[in-house]
Amino acid sequence: MNSPTTRPIMKWAISRRAQQLTSSAIREILKVTERPEVISFAGGLPSPASFPVAAMEAAVARVFADNPQSALQYAATEGFMPLREFVAKRYNVDVERVMITTGSQQALDLIAKVMIDPGSPVLVETPSYLGALQAFSLFEPEFVSIPSDEKGLIPEALTPELTAGARFLYALPNFQNPTGRRLPLERRQELVKRAKELGVLLVEDDPYGELSYSGNQLPSLLSMNPDGVIYMGSFSKILAPGMRLGFVIAPPDLHFKLCQAKQASDLHTPTFTQRIAYETIKDGLLEQHIPTIRELYGKQCAFMLDALKRHMPAGVTWNAPEGGMFIWVELPEGLDSMKILEEAVRRNVAYVPGAPFYAGSPRKNTLRLAFVTVSAERIEQGVSILGEVFREAIAQAAPQARAA
Amino acid sequence: MNSPTTRPIMKWAISRRAQQLTSSAIREILKVTERPEVISFAGGLPSPASFPVAAMEAAVARVFADNPQSALQYAATEGFMPLREFVAKRYNVDVERVMITTGSQQALDLIAKVMIDPGSPVLVETPSYLGALQAFSLFEPEFVSIPSDEKGLIPEALTPELTAGARFLYALPNFQNPTGRRLPLERRQELVKRAKELGVLLVEDDPYGELSYSGNQLPSLLSMNPDGVIYMGSFSKILAPGMRLGFVIAPPDLHFKLCQAKQASDLHTPTFTQRIAYETIKDGLLEQHIPTIRELYGKQCAFMLDALKRHMPAGVTWNAPEGGMFIWVELPEGLDSMKILEEAVRRNVAYVPGAPFYAGSPRKNTLRLAFVTVSAERIEQGVSILGEVFREAIAQAAPQARAA
Repeated sequence: MNSPTTRPIMKWAISRRAQQLTSSAIREILKVTERPEVISFAGGLPSPASFPVAAMEAAVARVFADNPQSALQYAATEGFMPLREFVAKRYNVDVERVMITTGSQQALDLIAKVMIDPGSPVLVETPSYLGALQAFSLFEPEFVSIPSDEKGLIPEALTPELTAGARFLYALPNFQNPTGRRLPLERRQELVKRAKELGVLLVEDDPYGELSYSGNQLPSLLSMNPDGVIYMGSFSKILAPGMRLGFVIAPPDLHFKLCQAKQASDLHTPTFTQRIAYETIKDGLLEQHIPTIRELYGKQCAFMLDALKRHMPAGVTWNAPEGGMFIWVELPEGLDSMKILEEAVRRNVAYVPGAPFYAGSPRKNTLRLAFVTVSAERIEQGVSILGEVFREAIAQAAPQARAA
Repeated sequence: MNSPTTRPIMKWAISRRAQQLTSSAIREILKVTERPEVISFAGGLPSPASFPVAAMEAAVARVFADNPQSALQYAATEGFMPLREFVAKRYNVDVERVMITTGSQQALDLIAKVMIDPGSPVLVETPSYLGALQAFSLFEPEFVSIPSDEKGLIPEALTPELTAGARFLYALPNFQNPTGRRLPLERRQELVKRAKELGVLLVEDDPYGELSYSGNQLPSLLSMNPDGVIYMGSFSKILAPGMRLGFVIAPPDLHFKLCQAKQASDLHTPTFTQRIAYETIKDGLLEQHIPTIRELYGKQCAFMLDALKRHMPAGVTWNAPEGGMFIWVELPEGLDSMKILEEAVRRNVAYVPGAPFYAGSPRKNTLRLAFVTVSAERIEQGVSILGEVFREAIAQAAPQARAA
């Protein structure tokens, strides 16, 4: 994993932040999951069956028929105005607060650029989204983990001591990556109230909010306090991730700074993809399309929950998400899901260990299962194999535990 | 220009780098150039007449016919392999050194992320590309200006003292933005030789290299020392900028770090635009297409040079570029092109003052003219007006100079 071919020796003087970037051990293990015989519950990919291909093809034709030169020219940093207006209307905010980003990953980078100095405290859930931890890490913050339970972060834990000097609190209230948890309404209300009292800016990352299986949605933090929240949205899970389209809604002062940072980062998000997205959704496609994704993902989740119930040994627990793409699994204390992954991959099943999702002390007995791109048959087969692998790991650990 | 509507009061604690981001005064003045009655020589936009629209439309159709799901899915951070291979072949480098970026502006951001610590010396030409200065500035380097003349940077100026501790030297050897200068062959050779001796990494930014009017091209710095150069290329000037597609060719150790930084910045460049670009150019389109851009831009440049000769008052000088999109104009010493811009814009003609392109002491009597998107008739009209404006400014300055 540390072979010179993947980690060449560095000849040049590079930045401190770049020195700290380490290649993820998981990434190396998971490279093998590209082999077709591997049943992978590791990827965070939406199902390609959910991409509205025909509608997008028709949209492209309209863009070429209409004004292709302008779709292919440089454009404003803030994004394509009709798409910004679409977002503003959908979220009931002033269009001047909306900026289109090159995927919502870029919004994480821009927020970090604008908000984080080396050593700045940044509050994160326990666990939190790995891609956010990575984006923020480049700007060398001091992560502060917020105590969380099976319902998500615990607002009562937000004290003046814990939040002192925090540049922001980063949260995914809906079907969080990695846990699939949804923050209950009362906690949202309490979180917004405390954040306001403590003067803490909230960064609400919401790529999965539309993916409630039942269709029932909870109010966003943004809707509760627009002047105290930077909201990040994405078209990756409701249209297609290969377009790399996201958006950020921010109070005017921060919107202005985010735009300046974006201009230095990539001038603007591709005009071409923004126009296509707008043409695809402008006449109400999402209203028909999103329910089909909810139904598909709800069914896939049910397959996996059913298989887990039948195949997991005693001592293994998991949650039943109300939406999104992930289930969070806990093995008995003392087991290390990272070590067990090597055996699972040997038997052609993959998942993502939970440890890298923790900014502070990791719970090594956790792991994330993604289920939306795998067929029912392969879910059954893969979970059955995982059940065996976990059973063996538990059996092996037991004598050691007794010996210890 | 400093009204609260464009610069809201900042309520939150933000990063030091974001505090330093100032809104450009030029940007505010140039906003008026969007009015159709303004003849703008200010924009850096390629001519929409040069976009191969029909070929791109056909390419999109092939992408949808072939494998649209995969063009719409998440993909590798390094970029779409066939497009990387296309670039590798064109530049005669190992494909493992090639990464696709979201426009070459992103490459500037990634290079800054990987290479610059606060206070790191970074060598730049005098003047240099404004977008690069902005991208680098976010990472708080110490800019060191390299003495330059009308042929570009002077390699002999690179001494151990000047280059001490420099993280890299940033240069645009071909038809530089803003000056239109092309670095002669002997200077390239001397630059590469000195950089090697002094252990200075070269960052070669080359968006205009293909736009030599005569078609004669000089060897890249990359070709002279692939292990000591990060090369940045762009599809913006040979295909279309609205696709936001660029690429970076780097030694393996730096390529690896740039990929890690890119993953945190936007995961990857849109799969969709990469596929379309590849489908557009894979069968040799560039060989037919680039000569048409050269011819168009060469003609446009000739129109402007001709108009300058007829309309500029004595004391104003300019260069005759061999390629690219820009002419660099010098007014008599003591004049300030920024102040004069206000009068020019009042008469509906715009340009970009030279001062912001200087990392160190600006030469305020310089300015940049862009000519590729303006009709011959409007070039004539606009240059004629500029001639009057400059003549008046010179006349006004003369008595003051005598009085002083």
